[in-house]
Amino acid sequence: MELGMIGIGRMGANMAQRLVRAGHKVVGYARTASTVEQRVKEGAISSGATSLEDVVHQLSTPRILWLMVPAASVDDTIAQLLPHLSENDIIIDGGNSNYQDDIRRAAELKKHNIHYVDCGTSGGVWGLERGYCEMIGGEVETVKYLDPIFKVLAPGIEAASRTPDRTTQGGTAEYGYLHCGPHGAGHFVKMVHNGIEYGIMAAYAEGLNILRHANIGKNQGLIDAETAPVQSPEHYQYDMDLPEIAELWRRGSVISSWLLDLTAHAFQQSRDLSNFSGRVSDSGEGRWTVKAAIDEGVPAHVLSAALYDRFESRNEAEFANKVLSAMRFEFGGHHER
Amino acid sequence: MELGMIGIGRMGANMAQRLVRAGHKVVGYARTASTVEQRVKEGAISSGATSLEDVVHQLSTPRILWLMVPAASVDDTIAQLLPHLSENDIIIDGGNSNYQDDIRRAAELKKHNIHYVDCGTSGGVWGLERGYCEMIGGEVETVKYLDPIFKVLAPGIEAASRTPDRTTQGGTAEYGYLHCGPHGAGHFVKMVHNGIEYGIMAAYAEGLNILRHANIGKNQGLIDAETAPVQSPEHYQYDMDLPEIAELWRRGSVISSWLLDLTAHAFQQSRDLSNFSGRVSDSGEGRWTVKAAIDEGVPAHVLSAALYDRFESRNEAEFANKVLSAMRFEFGGHHER
Amino acid sequence: MELGMIGIGRMGANMAQRLVRAGHKVVGYARTASTVEQRVKEGAISSGATSLEDVVHQLSTPRILWLMVPAASVDDTIAQLLPHLSENDIIIDGGNSNYQDDIRRAAELKKHNIHYVDCGTSGGVWGLERGYCEMIGGEVETVKYLDPIFKVLAPGIEAASRTPDRTTQGGTAEYGYLHCGPHGAGHFVKMVHNGIEYGIMAAYAEGLNILRHANIGKNQGLIDAETAPVQSPEHYQYDMDLPEIAELWRRGSVISSWLLDLTAHAFQQSRDLSNFSGRVSDSGEGRWTVKAAIDEGVPAHVLSAALYDRFESRNEAEFANKVLSAMRFEFGGHHER
Amino acid sequence: MELGMIGIGRMGANMAQRLVRAGHKVVGYARTASTVEQRVKEGAISSGATSLEDVVHQLSTPRILWLMVPAASVDDTIAQLLPHLSENDIIIDGGNSNYQDDIRRAAELKKHNIHYVDCGTSGGVWGLERGYCEMIGGEVETVKYLDPIFKVLAPGIEAASRTPDRTTQGGTAEYGYLHCGPHGAGHFVKMVHNGIEYGIMAAYAEGLNILRHANIGKNQGLIDAETAPVQSPEHYQYDMDLPEIAELWRRGSVISSWLLDLTAHAFQQSRDLSNFSGRVSDSGEGRWTVKAAIDEGVPAHVLSAALYDRFESRNEAEFANKVLSAMRFEFGGHHER
Repeated sequence: MELGMIGIGRMGANMAQRLVRAGHKVVGYARTASTVEQRVKEGAISSGATSLEDVVHQLSTPRILWLMVPAASVDDTIAQLLPHLSENDIIIDGGNSNYQDDIRRAAELKKHNIHYVDCGTSGGVWGLERGYCEMIGGEVETVKYLDPIFKVLAPGIEAASRTPDRTTQGGTAEYGYLHCGPHGAGHFVKMVHNGIEYGIMAAYAEGLNILRHANIGKNQGLIDAETAPVQSPEHYQYDMDLPEIAELWRRGSVISSWLLDLTAHAFQQSRDLSNFSGRVSDSGEGRWTVKAAIDEGVPAHVLSAALYDRFESRNEAEFANKVLSAMRFEFGGHHER
Repeated sequence: MELGMIGIGRMGANMAQRLVRAGHKVVGYARTASTVEQRVKEGAISSGATSLEDVVHQLSTPRILWLMVPAASVDDTIAQLLPHLSENDIIIDGGNSNYQDDIRRAAELKKHNIHYVDCGTSGGVWGLERGYCEMIGGEVETVKYLDPIFKVLAPGIEAASRTPDRTTQGGTAEYGYLHCGPHGAGHFVKMVHNGIEYGIMAAYAEGLNILRHANIGKNQGLIDAETAPVQSPEHYQYDMDLPEIAELWRRGSVISSWLLDLTAHAFQQSRDLSNFSGRVSDSGEGRWTVKAAIDEGVPAHVLSAALYDRFESRNEAEFANKVLSAMRFEFGGHHER
Repeated sequence: MELGMIGIGRMGANMAQRLVRAGHKVVGYARTASTVEQRVKEGAISSGATSLEDVVHQLSTPRILWLMVPAASVDDTIAQLLPHLSENDIIIDGGNSNYQDDIRRAAELKKHNIHYVDCGTSGGVWGLERGYCEMIGGEVETVKYLDPIFKVLAPGIEAASRTPDRTTQGGTAEYGYLHCGPHGAGHFVKMVHNGIEYGIMAAYAEGLNILRHANIGKNQGLIDAETAPVQSPEHYQYDMDLPEIAELWRRGSVISSWLLDLTAHAFQQSRDLSNFSGRVSDSGEGRWTVKAAIDEGVPAHVLSAALYDRFESRNEAEFANKVLSAMRFEFGGHHER
Repeated sequence: MELGMIGIGRMGANMAQRLVRAGHKVVGYARTASTVEQRVKEGAISSGATSLEDVVHQLSTPRILWLMVPAASVDDTIAQLLPHLSENDIIIDGGNSNYQDDIRRAAELKKHNIHYVDCGTSGGVWGLERGYCEMIGGEVETVKYLDPIFKVLAPGIEAASRTPDRTTQGGTAEYGYLHCGPHGAGHFVKMVHNGIEYGIMAAYAEGLNILRHANIGKNQGLIDAETAPVQSPEHYQYDMDLPEIAELWRRGSVISSWLLDLTAHAFQQSRDLSNFSGRVSDSGEGRWTVKAAIDEGVPAHVLSAALYDRFESRNEAEFANKVLSAMRFEFGGHHER
């Protein structure tokens, strides 16, 4: 098939390359001309385009346009594309849009008889080789039409052993892609995927932090009225070898996972992770997941805590902490240490 | 009555003074001789002692010894006192001991026929004027014997309006002191009191922090794939006047409280609390409260979160955050900002 | 002044009465005619109206219309009022609207030269006697015009002792009402007020729950591989008297508050609160507070946990728990008990 | 080598079998004679014993005794074994003991010149085939001596692909077992492993619960002052196919893991998990992990929340919720629904 890939940064270029390797034609576009040239040279795209209009003109109808741009640029990009499109063309948003924007966009584009598909894509920088897990939302016919594309991008059935007792016949989930429901369903599932990701990451991070401080009993605390001393220092005398423990858990343990594999790798770069400062970004999906939980009225203690820990890593609790210090000074005359 | 006050720092001196004003005799002792002299000069104590032995000798039997020393020094102090005591003497620990230590100490002292009473004391630096809320554990007879002391230290019935429909006859709770149960019960109740205190403080701190950031929509965020932009900046255009809002809530609102009164006062010193850095200590009871919840198998989401926020204010999550950054770099090539 | 009170249920009627007592004229309206008659009979309103149109006609211009209706009915009510209003009339939403709706409504009404004011009101069923804490958003001139109304509804300066060192001159915060900022600012502050309220309530609830289970060591646990036994039963032998402890903390403790006063009262009705089942509603503000925290990127561990505890009290975690049980069965063959 | 396996329930029998298959001699013992007979018949053990004494007598010195009994029975079992043991015999606790008990036991046994090793074992009912992840604490020489046993039980290096860039030479972590440090270090690491396990499980559970309620907008809520309505029902119209989504995430996603594999399997048994009630046990390690975090003064928001969610699944928050309902009734006259 033919496809225009709009946005050929790290993620977009890798996806294009996976499509090209499988025999699809990919017209690539980026705002920076040198990026386009580079991608052509690398063979990541079949041909480069000089403008959005140029992308459109290089494709035969019905056109397939895959957007791989920051969520905040999707509306602009669609607005610029729209004048050049024809009825039945298809726009796929493969980035990290909020699913509520998908619902709105699909309705707007429907007025122009343009089809819209949202595709949450997981796999990060490893996707070129490992394949992308695709969570897809949109109309049944359109998603079915795009099947050859989704299939190539997906990891394929051999990427994991078969789930024992699986009785479901057919379906694409075992290949690593799934039509999850109507417009927005793909990004909804991706949003929750990322919410879970935050939670799992925080679980490992907290656990490893506890292991790291398992030698706290070696440092004698102060005796005064304001500092809680280590209650039983004899129980905290362990110098744990975190790189080896992360490696250990990869085999046979209940908590083996791909994120643990990556953590074991990270420890090979620096055993105390001193190449990082601990300032953790969040890119939206964790926030939306918590908001969805609230809208639905279901508890999300863990996912929220994981999100807030990121806020706190960026010092966003500073004023709250000052309030606490101020109160402690007020009622107890406690000075900060 | 006569009483030895061991530990006449801020808290101990104020309590002694309250007792002296009511006509009790208080022998005061501190490790630093100049402190003792100062307290005598202030009139906070009836007389000063030069040693623990001296305290004991200045009191008639059965002696009452009120300890107001750091929790970590209680066992030492008792060990030094013990050789000088007689049967039926009474030791009161009025500091912040763990209630489990009370149970142990009471059993040890019982072998010497010395009575032990634990008294959790709330009121902070305001207690001289406002009175102390006393949560008491120990034997019925001993606690009853000490009633004149507890009564004087307590705020008294006029410190709050009567609870409507209150049918309980008698009792001391309305005066601000209570025999809560056997050894340790006083510090157990005090421990939970402080756990609740952490939770309430955190609730105000988080809420005020949300108000403070209510103008975040005024700062335009970056458009890139890694930063979550403010979703609807038009909804976050408020410059809130926190000192006035804290004052406002003191009257008629559901969240009026003494801690809010103190917060309103703190804002009068500095409207952005810039006199604090936000490094928040914890002195033990919050930790013990959470451990008690775990031992009992009851959830304590809020009290734990309040405790952990203090740990985080002291940067104890740093390594955990590095783990998160390392994982993000591993799967997505994300660099820290 | 003259004012139409639309919605004269529990809250609205009490507010009307407070205004009438102070000499203002209040025209009251409810959808049920018998309610209106009753309020006239009680003297809670100066006169009753048979329709929204009738309310409008009984008032002189510029009219003041105070809405005290469910948040979900405000838009409808305004739509029905609008045809009967004149330029410069004022609509006050005194209910629990989301502040984002205030911003939208104010903009819409401005096109008709109608002024809109949002007023978050705290005080519950006690407000008639105790006064209402009012958090107000809107244009400076309009809010100033309404001052006589706000002042009467507020508790007044004598409702609390003066904050020591208070240097702020003038202002209304000390009277219990405050113009917090432009449209929506009032409900924003009220929203955060309620978020804090959830947190404080949860802190007491968790703490009291820990006290209630302080006798868990009296029940011997099973010895098997799947149940965590009580680690040191000798430390959990206390039968705590919760009604007396709640009363105790009202005087001199750091955690004295109005919510504690109410809790002490509740325990007088039933010492084990057996008149409640523990199914806790939430009415929106707690949710919005957490969403605001997320939009602002500030942590709200405690306020979120308090919100989720309410969801969990209504069994909304049931499916999540089934997932946990299913996983435990899968990896460990663990059966539920 | 020769080894006595004390406790041949599900876990112990599988471990014995794995050792027997590899050519080790295993003497098995259980309190119920029929269990021993059955294990002999299955070939899970080389021979059965009729008493602890009999186990000891069937082994040559230095004897190796592997305990696979409930944590609460370990001290008893050791006390019964001790009279029959000789110097240099080795006791391994392969169950779920608290590491603090390991430290105590090792010190006690050292007086008798008996060696003690703690071995946290992960792998559950799948270990026979998948191998066990072993986290080991004890003296260097003793652990080295036992290497042939640990190696056989472990999954082996082929159980996972090699961590790229791994520079560490030698070591056993890549085989799935590790000497983590002195006495207790093995169970400490296992404890944190389980703490992390709770967190990961809760992350999936919360996320799947959010997906399950993604159709909440289809149910119209009530309009009243006490129920928070679904804010934008049009955004919650999805009927998600959870079994297919769990399957989908197994390939290419960031959150692929063994626990997800198991979850996908569980959904094949029942797509709504109606075979479970949602009452989730906890067996100790999650509690100890949180207590360790507190002792160390490091935050553990996520691990604690995961633990408390289990408590709540067993209704342990009931009284706390009644307190909330009581407060709401007190200040707002709110009745429970």
